[in-house]
Amino acid sequence: MASLHYICFAKRLSYDVDLKRVGLEATKLCRSKSKLITAATLSTASRNLVNSSRSFNTNSEDWSGQNETPRWNWKASAKKAALALAFAGTIGAGVYMKFSKDSKYTSPRNWGLSLPLPGKVFAAQIVPGVLKDGLPLYTAADVSAHDSKEKGIWVIYGNGVYDITEYVVQHPGGTKILMAAGKSIEPFWEVYSVHKNDEIYEIMESYRIGNIKEVPAKSKTSDANDPYKNEPQRSPLLIPSSEKPFNAEPPVQMLADQFLTPNDMFYVRNHLPVPCVCIDDFTLDLALSTGTPSLTFDELTKKFPKHSVTAAIQCAGNRRSEMVKVKPVKGLNWGSAAISNAKFSGVSLNELLRHYNVDIDTVRAKYIVFEGLDTQPDGSPYGASIPLELARLLKNDIIIAYEMNGEQLSRDHGYPLRIIIPGVVGARQVKWLKKIYFSPEESTSHWQRRDYKGFNASTDWHNVDFDKSVSISQLPVISAICDPVEGQELEEGAEEVTLKGYAWSGGGRGIIRVDVSADGGKTWHEATLKPNGQTPYHSYAWTLWEADIPLPKGMTQTELVVKAVDISYNVQPDSVAGIWNLRGCLSNAWHRVNVKVSPA
Amino acid sequence: MASLHYICFAKRLSYDVDLKRVGLEATKLCRSKSKLITAATLSTASRNLVNSSRSFNTNSEDWSGQNETPRWNWKASAKKAALALAFAGTIGAGVYMKFSKDSKYTSPRNWGLSLPLPGKVFAAQIVPGVLKDGLPLYTAADVSAHDSKEKGIWVIYGNGVYDITEYVVQHPGGTKILMAAGKSIEPFWEVYSVHKNDEIYEIMESYRIGNIKEVPAKSKTSDANDPYKNEPQRSPLLIPSSEKPFNAEPPVQMLADQFLTPNDMFYVRNHLPVPCVCIDDFTLDLALSTGTPSLTFDELTKKFPKHSVTAAIQCAGNRRSEMVKVKPVKGLNWGSAAISNAKFSGVSLNELLRHYNVDIDTVRAKYIVFEGLDTQPDGSPYGASIPLELARLLKNDIIIAYEMNGEQLSRDHGYPLRIIIPGVVGARQVKWLKKIYFSPEESTSHWQRRDYKGFNASTDWHNVDFDKSVSISQLPVISAICDPVEGQELEEGAEEVTLKGYAWSGGGRGIIRVDVSADGGKTWHEATLKPNGQTPYHSYAWTLWEADIPLPKGMTQTELVVKAVDISYNVQPDSVAGIWNLRGCLSNAWHRVNVKVSPA
Repeated sequence: MASLHYICFAKRLSYDVDLKRVGLEATKLCRSKSKLITAATLSTASRNLVNSSRSFNTNSEDWSGQNETPRWNWKASAKKAALALAFAGTIGAGVYMKFSKDSKYTSPRNWGLSLPLPGKVFAAQIVPGVLKDGLPLYTAADVSAHDSKEKGIWVIYGNGVYDITEYVVQHPGGTKILMAAGKSIEPFWEVYSVHKNDEIYEIMESYRIGNIKEVPAKSKTSDANDPYKNEPQRSPLLIPSSEKPFNAEPPVQMLADQFLTPNDMFYVRNHLPVPCVCIDDFTLDLALSTGTPSLTFDELTKKFPKHSVTAAIQCAGNRRSEMVKVKPVKGLNWGSAAISNAKFSGVSLNELLRHYNVDIDTVRAKYIVFEGLDTQPDGSPYGASIPLELARLLKNDIIIAYEMNGEQLSRDHGYPLRIIIPGVVGARQVKWLKKIYFSPEESTSHWQRRDYKGFNASTDWHNVDFDKSVSISQLPVISAICDPVEGQELEEGAEEVTLKGYAWSGGGRGIIRVDVSADGGKTWHEATLKPNGQTPYHSYAWTLWEADIPLPKGMTQTELVVKAVDISYNVQPDSVAGIWNLRGCLSNAWHRVNVKVSPA
Repeated sequence: MASLHYICFAKRLSYDVDLKRVGLEATKLCRSKSKLITAATLSTASRNLVNSSRSFNTNSEDWSGQNETPRWNWKASAKKAALALAFAGTIGAGVYMKFSKDSKYTSPRNWGLSLPLPGKVFAAQIVPGVLKDGLPLYTAADVSAHDSKEKGIWVIYGNGVYDITEYVVQHPGGTKILMAAGKSIEPFWEVYSVHKNDEIYEIMESYRIGNIKEVPAKSKTSDANDPYKNEPQRSPLLIPSSEKPFNAEPPVQMLADQFLTPNDMFYVRNHLPVPCVCIDDFTLDLALSTGTPSLTFDELTKKFPKHSVTAAIQCAGNRRSEMVKVKPVKGLNWGSAAISNAKFSGVSLNELLRHYNVDIDTVRAKYIVFEGLDTQPDGSPYGASIPLELARLLKNDIIIAYEMNGEQLSRDHGYPLRIIIPGVVGARQVKWLKKIYFSPEESTSHWQRRDYKGFNASTDWHNVDFDKSVSISQLPVISAICDPVEGQELEEGAEEVTLKGYAWSGGGRGIIRVDVSADGGKTWHEATLKPNGQTPYHSYAWTLWEADIPLPKGMTQTELVVKAVDISYNVQPDSVAGIWNLRGCLSNAWHRVNVKVSPA
C-alpha cells in the first residue's frame, strides 16, 4: 500500500453527520466479508446513506439526493470518499484512493477499503484499559519517549499502553491524534466523546502492547505559605504558559472544532492566585452615588432576570509568540489559542444599576471600575476599568455572569462572578468580581496603567512612556489557522489542504470575509464562514471558518496564510514587524503556518 | 549664499500667530536698515514678541515667556528662527541659518536676515495686479509654460504677470507656492487670505514682469441636450478626476492646513449631473408606515431644531491611485484628497421620524433607504441604504443637513439637503436628498449592489460575484501625508523634515496614535495629534497631525511613511498588494511619499 497516493477527506464532513447511520452502512459493508471493497460497492453504500437522509450537513449540492444515479464526477466522489472514510474510520478501517499523477480533477482510478480488524467487528461491552495479565509493564516515562512517527507513537488509556503508530494514518480525525502522542488519550476523548463506544474500544485494544506501571502521585511538600496552594484542578489538555499564576491555552488544533469552547478547555489568564470563595460569605459591592448596596449571590441571581451573551474573550497577548520572533518582548509566550468562545449568562449591569436608580447614560463620571477578589501581596485587588462612553455604547450587552455555557462559572473563570464586556480585551472582564464603582479616572491598577497598552515598533523599554498610550479596550480584527499546525506534514502527495480556524473582531464588528492562501499570500481564496447567529454590528462571538484549497504544485513545503475582514472593512496588517511592541500585545498580523508536503 | 545650509522652520508655526504683532517687530528690524541682522538682534526681536504675548500657539514650552533670557538651546532657537522666518516672510525677506555639518542638535553657527526689497517696505494702499503701461504682454499659455524651477515660475494676479522664481525659496509657506506655478495665484489666496495685505502686494509687485493678455472665454457651444449643461461654478483649485460627472479633489498640500475644509475646496464626488433645485418646489418625501408626509424646505428647517455634527466624509476610492500601481482597477484615479472635513447642520433624522411616530429602534425593516434628486438617463434616482442596525447605533448622530460650515449647502454638495451618516462611506450619504423609506432589503441601486464593495486580491472581473460581498458602510482606519508630496525636493541639506497630514477611522473610532517614519518604516516616531474636540467613540471628524522628524543621514532620497491606530487598536495594512481589489476601494495601506534631499 505504500505505493498508493492517500488523500484524507474526512475533514470535509461536519460533526453533524449521523454516525449511527454511518455505522449501519458500515455494518453492511463489513458483512460482505470482502477484504477489498470496490468503488461500485462503496458508491452504492454512500448513495444509500444519502438517499436515506437529507439532513447531512455537507454543504454540497451533490448530496441533494434527487439524483438516484449521480454522475461519478470528482466532486461527488470526493464527498462520497469522505463519507466512506468517516465510517471506515469509525470501524477502524482505512480508505484509500489511487490517482494517476496528473489527474487532479479526474476520477480516482482505484478505490479500496482496508479492514485491519481480524474477526468480528462489533463485539459488545468492551471495557478498555483494564489490566491484562502477561503483558509487559511500562512507566509513564517509557510512554512519553514514544511521541513521534520515528520513535513510535504510544498512548495510555486506563491501565493500558497502546502502540498506535500503524493506526495513525487511518485516523478519521487526521493528525489530531498526535496531540496525545506519549500521553494519556483520555482527556482528549472527554472532548471528542464520539470515541467512547465499543467499536473504538475494540480497535484500541487491538493495538495493546502492555500495562502502565502505576506512578504514585508525587507527595507534594505542602507549603502553608504558598499563595497558590489552593489552585483548582485543571484539564490536562491545557498547555500552560505559566504555572503560578496559572495561564494556559487549549491545543490550537482543537480550538476551531467547537463553536462554544468547553469550559475546561477555555484559555485561562490569571494574574494572581485563584481566590477561594465561600459563597455564603460572598457579596458584590456597588459604590454608587445613590448608596453602597452589597448583594449576596442569592439576591443577585434570584432578584434579577437572567440574560445571556455569546462572546469570544481574547487575551491582548494572543499570538504573542509570533512577535517574539521579530524581537524579544515581555509577556507570556502565548500561541494562537489565548482566545475562546462561550455563552455567558447573568445579570444585566444596566438593569442592576437602574434598580439602584443609577442611569448609566447620565451618571457623572468618566470611567466604570471593576475590582476582583484576587489580591496582590500588598492586599490590593486586581482592577480594571472601561471608559463610561464605551459602557454606554454596550450598556445592554454588559452582564455580570455567573454561568458559562450553562454551567456555574468555574474557579479559573471567576467563580462566582465575572463581568462580561463583550468585544473588549479579556483583561478588563474582571473575574471574581467583587466591586463596581464609577470614577473620574481610570482604574489605578498596574494592569490598567502600566500594561495592556500599545506602542509603535521603535518604542522600547528605554523610551517608553506608558502614560502617553491609551489603555486597550476594544480589540482589532484577528484570525488564525488552527488546523493544520506549524510544521505539520500533510498527507503524502496531497494536492489540496483543508484549513480550519477562527476570526473575530472587537467592538461587536462581525466578520464578513476570511481570505486564505496556500502559497504564502500570492493567491487568495475565500473561506466558508460558519454563521455565528449574531448581527453584523453586535457580533461578539467568533466566526469559525473552513476552506479546502489547492496546494501549489511541486512544492515540498509551503506557507498557509489567513487574514480576515470585519464589517467596518478593517483588515489585519501584513507583517508582525510593523506592529511589534515591547509588551507583545495586539499581535494580529496575517497568520502564517508552514507545512510540509511529501511528494507522492 | 549658495554655500549656506538652509532650514525652513516656518511650518513649525500655526496660523494662529498674530501677524500684526509680527509685522510690528519686523518693522523695527527693517528700520535698523541693516542688510544682515545678527543672531542677537533676531533673538531680541523674537524675545520681545514672546514677552508681549503668551497667546502664541506654538506648542512649545520654550515660549512660556517666563524666562526673560531664555537659554539659547537648539529647541528655543529653532522656534525663534521659525518666528523670525514668519515675519521675514511677511515682508518678503529670507532668513537663513548656517550649521556645521554634524551639528544637528547644537546651536546654529550663524544667522542672517536677507532683505530683498529696495526702499520702503510698508507702503500703504497698494492695488495689486492693475494694468501697467510699458510692460510686455503675455498670454495664459505663456504663463503656464513657466511652471518649474528650470523653466522659471510665473504666476498671474489680476492683470499682472509675475516671475517669482527667485522668491520661492523665501516663501514662508515653503513649496506650497509651487501649486500656483503657471497659473493664477488668486484662488489660493482666497484660501490663504493672510496674503491679502499691502506688504504682500508690495512684494509681489516687485516681481512684476508684465501684463496678461485677456483671453476671451471660449464661447461654449451650448448643447441644450447636454445633461451637464447646468453644472455649478467650481473653484479652480479643485483637481478633477472626471469632468462629467464632476469629480475632484483639492490639492493635497492644502488639505491638512485647516481642520474644517472650506466648502469650495471640499472634495466633490458626483455620480450624475448636479440637479437644479427650485427651493419653492422642493419637498423631502418620507414613506413611512404611519404616513407619507412631504415636507417643504421651510417646514423642515423651521419646525425642527438644528443639530450639528463635524464629520469627515471620504470616498471609498480615496488613495485609489496607489492601488493602480499594483494592478489596474476600475474607478476614478483619486489621490489622497478624496476626503474632507466639515461641520454639517440640519435636522436630526431620529427627531423627524419620531415626529411622525416612527421609532427607529422598533420599526420593522432591515434597511433605511435614501434617494437623491440626481437621476440616471432612465429616470431612476441615485440611491443608497444602510442597515437599520447601523442606523440604530448612530440614531442620534444622523442628520438631514442643509448647512455645511455654517453656509447653505452648495449645489455640488447636495443643495438643498444631504443625509449625513457620520463614520460611513460618502456614497451612502446621499446628496440632493429627496426620499427616505424603510425596506426589508438594501437599496436596489447599482451603487449599493454592484459598486462600493470589497473583494480579495485574487478576485477580478472574470470571477467576481458582487452578491457575495457586503456593501461598504463604515470605513476602516486610514491616514495620509499631505505635506511633503510625492517627489518633492526638500530644502538643500535638510536634516529634518516636517510632515503634516490627516488620520481618520470609520464608525466614530477616534485616532489614538499616528506613527511616522523618514526611512521607509525602519524607525518610527509618534506624530503630534491635534485634538478634534470629539470623544473617542464618537469621533467622526478627522484628526490632523504634524511631526518634525530627523532625516536619515547621507541619503539623496528617502521614503516618508505614515500609519494610524484607532481607539479599537485597528491598524492600517502594510502594503497595497494585500488589499488590492478590482474596484480599487478601501486603499488604506501605510501611506508612502518619496522625497529627494539634496546634499548641502
